[in-house]
Amino acid sequence: EIFEETIGLTLPNDLAGETVLVTAGPTREEIDPVRYISNYSSGKMGYAIARAARLRGAKVVLVSGPSALPQPVGVERICVTSAAEMKEAVLARCDEATIIVKAAAVADYRPAHRAEHKMKKHNTDALNLELEKNPDILSELGRRKGHRTLVGFAAETRDLLENARKKLTEKNLDLIVANDITQQHAGFDVDTNVVRLLAPDGSEEILPEMSKDEVAHRLLDRILALRG
Amino acid sequence: EIFEETIGLTLPNDLAGETVLVTAGPTREEIDPVRYISNYSSGKMGYAIARAARLRGAKVVLVSGPSALPQPVGVERICVTSAAEMKEAVLARCDEATIIVKAAAVADYRPAHRAEHKMKKHNTDALNLELEKNPDILSELGRRKGHRTLVGFAAETRDLLENARKKLTEKNLDLIVANDITQQHAGFDVDTNVVRLLAPDGSEEILPEMSKDEVAHRLLDRILALRG
Repeated sequence: EIFEETIGLTLPNDLAGETVLVTAGPTREEIDPVRYISNYSSGKMGYAIARAARLRGAKVVLVSGPSALPQPVGVERICVTSAAEMKEAVLARCDEATIIVKAAAVADYRPAHRAEHKMKKHNTDALNLELEKNPDILSELGRRKGHRTLVGFAAETRDLLENARKKLTEKNLDLIVANDITQQHAGFDVDTNVVRLLAPDGSEEILPEMSKDEVAHRLLDRILALRG
Repeated sequence: EIFEETIGLTLPNDLAGETVLVTAGPTREEIDPVRYISNYSSGKMGYAIARAARLRGAKVVLVSGPSALPQPVGVERICVTSAAEMKEAVLARCDEATIIVKAAAVADYRPAHRAEHKMKKHNTDALNLELEKNPDILSELGRRKGHRTLVGFAAETRDLLENARKKLTEKNLDLIVANDITQQHAGFDVDTNVVRLLAPDGSEEILPEMSKDEVAHRLLDRILALRG
């Protein structure tokens, strides 16, 4: 903690006056009291962005799905489990934000019916788990963003740029971080990342492999440039 | 580590000569490269049994699903992810075991078709996830157990004793640990547990709330008594 605060002194205070809302981690969608659907997101990228923004002077609100990571110093953390809870927390806090970075890996679908008791094994060899679509938090933010800068992530195993460009447009984002999670040293649970920053004007900034802390700072640099 | 080894000196060496195979933790069943089905098992109960057995002189093999817990000192740990991997590891090592304790919360079902690439959000609001039954490791062990002592767990949210007795009989177990996970201070992820030990002769030992380490030792006491 002391170490991070010390580093903070040597960083520009260029996010002073900004309020940054960051989402991080996976969501967990319960099937019954013991079983759930989740994903491999560790929260590392989102937490790195929260820390970096705080060190550069921003007020930071971090909405985090289940993650083993420690609460960043000086950051307000709101812990949630499901996509529905994440949506509620994000919408409650987005009005005060000037910059929103949605780094969480939110489940697209959840079980349509959560069983109140642990489901017993059936005699059948096959079983259909009925899923329903989760609320699309990013689209909702895109619709009501006003003068906020809204940044999304696209984590893909194929057709990365095509999927990222589509998401950038459809969700009304100002920037998207395209993340090929099949690459070594990139994606979930590792401390490094390999990303591209895509903007609505068609521009593409290709970053080499670097730590998630460095990616966070490069992303914040870019956001500041966008906000002019 | 030194602390545990020191405590070991004051414990009876009553499991010397035994080989204890313990399973612990959840399993994780992948839907695609990023998504999976899992459960809330932390591995704490199984790891406590592995540590306790080692401290009492047994050779211990621990087959563990994904868990954040450290490898117990002096214990051979085999890390697995899915139920299929757990079955393979357990069957490869069960012949050398004299005592088998299946504390893992193995997924009953897995996705019938794991997608090679991250599934894209569909336009449909509902989606069926087709599941197929996982191999039943405990039944397989029950069929081939010979002179081994075979112990299972029943973690339930209702009809605990009925479900536990059924499992005890159907899987050909020597003892079952019945675990009402709706109780406070019991079940997944906490350091204490509230259990009953049920035997095929109809007997029932009700243990008060105690640490999982203490539950482990009481369970091993009971196993030793069974082995006469």
